[in-house]
Amino acid sequence: MPRLVLIRHGQSTWNLENRFTGWWDVDVTEKGAEEARSAGALMAAKGLEFELCFASVQKRAIKTLHLALEAMDRLWLPTEKHWRLNERHYGGLTGLDKAETAARHGADQVQIWRRSFDVPPPPIEPGSSYDLSGDRRYADVEVPVAESLKDTIARVLPYWEERIAPALRSGQRVLISAHGNSLRALVKHLSRIPDDGISGLEIPTGQPIVYELDEDLAELDHYYLKDR
Amino acid sequence: MPRLVLIRHGQSTWNLENRFTGWWDVDVTEKGAEEARSAGALMAAKGLEFELCFASVQKRAIKTLHLALEAMDRLWLPTEKHWRLNERHYGGLTGLDKAETAARHGADQVQIWRRSFDVPPPPIEPGSSYDLSGDRRYADVEVPVAESLKDTIARVLPYWEERIAPALRSGQRVLISAHGNSLRALVKHLSRIPDDGISGLEIPTGQPIVYELDEDLAELDHYYLKDR
Repeated sequence: MPRLVLIRHGQSTWNLENRFTGWWDVDVTEKGAEEARSAGALMAAKGLEFELCFASVQKRAIKTLHLALEAMDRLWLPTEKHWRLNERHYGGLTGLDKAETAARHGADQVQIWRRSFDVPPPPIEPGSSYDLSGDRRYADVEVPVAESLKDTIARVLPYWEERIAPALRSGQRVLISAHGNSLRALVKHLSRIPDDGISGLEIPTGQPIVYELDEDLAELDHYYLKDR
Repeated sequence: MPRLVLIRHGQSTWNLENRFTGWWDVDVTEKGAEEARSAGALMAAKGLEFELCFASVQKRAIKTLHLALEAMDRLWLPTEKHWRLNERHYGGLTGLDKAETAARHGADQVQIWRRSFDVPPPPIEPGSSYDLSGDRRYADVEVPVAESLKDTIARVLPYWEERIAPALRSGQRVLISAHGNSLRALVKHLSRIPDDGISGLEIPTGQPIVYELDEDLAELDHYYLKDR
């Protein structure tokens, strides 16, 4: 039966500083790196094997994958990186910490942006130092100016359909290292969670989540690997 | 014009111990990791950009690539790993240090195995602790029992023709992280070095070597990046 493991990147520098990060390419902290190594050690101890790995094009997800694979002695596994697995783009909130954001926009509004399904944050300002539209890695991509969770799901799922689902159907065991919201997109799809039930679902950092799937890639079971 | 950069992995634990390594999957030392980071910093400082990276399936080459890309802030670059870029398989010499090998086989014979073009070392013994024929990563590969440099070249070049050369012809700038002998295979091919001139050619660890190529992928120029 197809098996998929999801892992949210280990703690990043802006997780620690409580700042909206989105597409900004911050690194993992030493704690985040250790979370990644521990996740790999856990997967190795449980005997998990993979044929194919995926990550976003953001270093906190890529390094989490590399550190986990190194701990499993599986650095040689093929790995595809794609922007469609990136974190939700936080638009004009990028770089702000929660206190700054609440002072600027009001706490109620911030809660709406963080927890609504389809309300995007304000667009990133032209010329912002966090504008990535000129970044080489996005040369062939229309970088969003802001994304709601709904927008995020809409650009994650074509990659699921095009690359990940076919790999699973062909019998490959798959590991995905990505972000809170790009993983929410996959979890919502796999577990058929309704629109109003997904934004509050918390995905912990550095914890491998195992999905056992049927042949149509519908969920049979899912669990944190540490609990089995 | 097509441009290719070759980098031999940083110092490995068995480089340091002066042991024949071949396909055995030893790690880089801290010095080797630092060589890799320095290579990346140099490539970044010189403004080198790439569209595609290649490595063997051995961790010393993969980690060298990852550390260099991290130093360039280019971890997101697509990377293909393939066993055809592996080091020459040293057969029954795997794991021996030079003194042990000379004591067992005689210094003259060791020199022949190290420096001849087409004399393979003795085959790895069945049941050797260095036998990798049961390793998952080689499930679809006939793991050699020993390779001469000629044998190594013969299995590197099909990958060059099938994957690397087409990428270069299509305009992609390519970085390859590999090993002394798999890089000799590429250097011999690019610079049209005769059979008796290649085994003595030393490729230093952690030094990016730039090849400027014409449209037929014949060499126009090559140089160590540190010298320009």
